[in-house]
Amino acid sequence: MKLVTFSDARGQRVGVISGEGVVDLSRADSDLPRDMIGLIAEWPRVRAVVERAASRAADAPLKSVKLRAPVPRPRKIMAIGLNYADHVAESGMKTPEQQIWFSKMPSAVTGPYDPIQLPKVSTALDYEVELVAVVGQGGRHIGKANAEDAVFGYCAGNDVTVRDWQFKTPQWVLGKSFDTHAPFGPWIVTTDEIGDPHTLGVRCFVNGEKRQDSNTKHLVFNVFDQIEELSKAMTLEPGDAIFTGTPGGVGAAMKPPAWLKAGDEVRCEIDRIGEIVNVVAPEGN
Amino acid sequence: MKLVTFSDARGQRVGVISGEGVVDLSRADSDLPRDMIGLIAEWPRVRAVVERAASRAADAPLKSVKLRAPVPRPRKIMAIGLNYADHVAESGMKTPEQQIWFSKMPSAVTGPYDPIQLPKVSTALDYEVELVAVVGQGGRHIGKANAEDAVFGYCAGNDVTVRDWQFKTPQWVLGKSFDTHAPFGPWIVTTDEIGDPHTLGVRCFVNGEKRQDSNTKHLVFNVFDQIEELSKAMTLEPGDAIFTGTPGGVGAAMKPPAWLKAGDEVRCEIDRIGEIVNVVAPEGN
Repeated sequence: MKLVTFSDARGQRVGVISGEGVVDLSRADSDLPRDMIGLIAEWPRVRAVVERAASRAADAPLKSVKLRAPVPRPRKIMAIGLNYADHVAESGMKTPEQQIWFSKMPSAVTGPYDPIQLPKVSTALDYEVELVAVVGQGGRHIGKANAEDAVFGYCAGNDVTVRDWQFKTPQWVLGKSFDTHAPFGPWIVTTDEIGDPHTLGVRCFVNGEKRQDSNTKHLVFNVFDQIEELSKAMTLEPGDAIFTGTPGGVGAAMKPPAWLKAGDEVRCEIDRIGEIVNVVAPEGN
Repeated sequence: MKLVTFSDARGQRVGVISGEGVVDLSRADSDLPRDMIGLIAEWPRVRAVVERAASRAADAPLKSVKLRAPVPRPRKIMAIGLNYADHVAESGMKTPEQQIWFSKMPSAVTGPYDPIQLPKVSTALDYEVELVAVVGQGGRHIGKANAEDAVFGYCAGNDVTVRDWQFKTPQWVLGKSFDTHAPFGPWIVTTDEIGDPHTLGVRCFVNGEKRQDSNTKHLVFNVFDQIEELSKAMTLEPGDAIFTGTPGGVGAAMKPPAWLKAGDEVRCEIDRIGEIVNVVAPEGN
């Protein structure tokens, strides 16, 4: 199934994709949670109802609604750095022996087709296509063998980065957390439709030019390694978003660096999921 | 005013301190928001009602309720590193020219008198007393001159840290985000009662022994510098928590390092606010 958070004149709610349209889950069953975190948290109870809804005709064509980030406000967003060998090499680093975790602030989330802000305080704006894992029931101390069950589904994401702010101190979080710099979506594809998440082509295009082209089979630490490590420290919760790393080809590694400019269209595409498309717009316009 | 989030047999809600007790704001006015983030967001509208409630007799003695973290689930927690000269020196670092920001995950929040977990995966558990600023209406690009108005109030906090996890990669966030490692409270003291936040004594005691003893006048980057810098990147939102840095005296800097052990009582005390007291307990017990 493909689950969405969408809005129209009647407000924001959750739905499931049917054909080229969306089934409004608030109409499918009055007992269903109204937001994605609630839906994920209650998935064991509501799954069968949502599956039946997905087999119905759509209530509205997709083009008639606005898709939000599937989890508009994750409780946390964790992201891993230097997690594809070619990106490690282009960054002039060694393949890490430990998982390098940073975070993106939830206030940075934006929708799959919404603008990315070119900040007032920097021009060093860069893209990073990433597979995003959305946490299901969550928990603590989830061993690698059980980590697959801890994932609810997957999205395409862009770990948009302000490079000079990322590196102005040793801590990356500020440069990773500018408003609008965590677009993901366009939907959550549930794990049963993805199968093995480590066989997915991952590509990023800027104005149609292919800049990143890899496959999740090249992840240094795979999704399940990541969940094991994170949950040693913290309880993973329904709807938490995990940005699983970006392959080589970022703008910072080009000579000279190719920063995103106002008007640029960035398309991040992942096999069996789909694509998000975000246009760069000056902040405040 | 001192605002609290508390719970009793009837559930969790917000209140205001009156004498040695708490006025239940859900009883004061049915139109008041039921949680602290809502209350802060609507403060211009509800302030007068809360002020009247604060002048009433308490509904319950403080000792009869359980105090939660005043904002039990901040949307974000940002924290600054190396922000007192003596802590910079004991860490063997140079005074930073840029503000060094990291984050703590909101899942790490715990109450002012709740246990701190000694993790299963580390024994290098450390304390860091800090003044915590709670964001009011928030916003983006808040200049230093306006930053005072962006603060709703202040708390005492403990930036509990798992040192080996903090430093096992260059990014600190994992070692700063273990469950229960962001206790703060016991209440939010509104800015009008604090006055100048850069004149507050800040102390930490472990089993009654004074380990940290400084004053916010020694902050390298003061609270208003911090708000200016953060809001260049991200929209600050009602209830966001900003951990403003810790002075010298942490356990890691002692020779040999004095890690917290199960049963240790950590008391973090700040002038004009009060204290939080957390006992170390093995995770899972």
